Amino acid sequence: MKIGVLGSGMVGNTLATKLVELGHEVMMGSRTADNEKAQAWRKSAGGLAKCGTFAEAAAFGSLVLNCTNGANSMAALRLVGAGPLRGKTLLDAANPLDFSSGAPQLTVCNTDSLGEQIQREFPETNVVKVFNTVNCQLMTDPSVVPGDHHLFICGNSAAAKADTIAKLGEWFGWKRENIIDLGDITAARCTEMYLPLWLRLMSVLGTPRFSIQVHQG
Amino acid sequence: MKIGVLGSGMVGNTLATKLVELGHEVMMGSRTADNEKAQAWRKSAGGLAKCGTFAEAAAFGSLVLNCTNGANSMAALRLVGAGPLRGKTLLDAANPLDFSSGAPQLTVCNTDSLGEQIQREFPETNVVKVFNTVNCQLMTDPSVVPGDHHLFICGNSAAAKADTIAKLGEWFGWKRENIIDLGDITAARCTEMYLPLWLRLMSVLGTPRFSIQVHQG
Repeated sequence: MKIGVLGSGMVGNTLATKLVELGHEVMMGSRTADNEKAQAWRKSAGGLAKCGTFAEAAAFGSLVLNCTNGANSMAALRLVGAGPLRGKTLLDAANPLDFSSGAPQLTVCNTDSLGEQIQREFPETNVVKVFNTVNCQLMTDPSVVPGDHHLFICGNSAAAKADTIAKLGEWFGWKRENIIDLGDITAARCTEMYLPLWLRLMSVLGTPRFSIQVHQG
Repeated sequence: MKIGVLGSGMVGNTLATKLVELGHEVMMGSRTADNEKAQAWRKSAGGLAKCGTFAEAAAFGSLVLNCTNGANSMAALRLVGAGPLRGKTLLDAANPLDFSSGAPQLTVCNTDSLGEQIQREFPETNVVKVFNTVNCQLMTDPSVVPGDHHLFICGNSAAAKADTIAKLGEWFGWKRENIIDLGDITAARCTEMYLPLWLRLMSVLGTPRFSIQVHQG
């Protein structure tokens, strides 16, 4: 299918590369169409890889992935506008983290979240928050961490979540039973607020290649 | 040993009951010495159980546990004052949650935490943040959730943390390898900010008897 990937950083690059490998046409969107990282990716990723602006990539995809820097995601999505995203599912993998003051801080949390902000500003788009609690290597290959560990998903559209869960299995090998549906998009504040713990664990463990499993008693 | 347990709610009751069963002298502290829940606990828990004010319980214990409602913990600890806590380890199991507006919210987060607030206000006390990421039944018996799941600990004093980790093993059966030291007390904001996810998981799973295991790749 045609997929728009917004963002040319590590997350966007990893997802876009894997999606091209799977045979999808992928347009990577950046602030400017001549973005160097996006152009370099296009050249290395082969014939199914395209580059464009954020708006062009969103218009291109029948599915759109937000892989922009979370602190700048709203600005990037405003460059797209409502039109190219209308009626589509937007997978939001971003975390609104600001590292400028040393200790990482969320730019929105507790009473709101990036996922909710996006859904409010784009009410005709089905925002599905997913992927933001794992490193990008795990997104496209959960087996890089052995065992049954869990991915969290949330969003207001049950149909969009079901379709996303099916694609996560088909494309990346995520087992259905290892994906936990946390409910509506307000749960985005729960998974985004997990990031400070995730970042501290990365520091303590010395690797971003980890994930958590929920055990029940 | 003599232990002061501040708070007569479910967490304080569970910990105090288990500690008395283990043969410790425990004084449960409340705002007033005649607190009904604390008195009822004392009568049911046997001869090693005592009741008093927050200040009396803190003075009584050579180890002190903060099990007060996190939104009110600072007020409770100010009733104690620095003197009764000086030179002691204070295990802080509280989460600064406010449920009054419907959706639970943290009263402090992101740039600060309850654990840090306590440590700043009581610089001569070794604050160890622990227990706040699991239900109280798991605190005193990790086996209620099968498998290897993790408990997080943090604090500025390595000695206080080592002593706490030893006691968690001896008293409650927490395996050393299932306790993750996240570093100094600033990590309290990481574990406290996990609570929105914990609360959402409790709602989705339908039980507070769950815990997370960190898997490494």
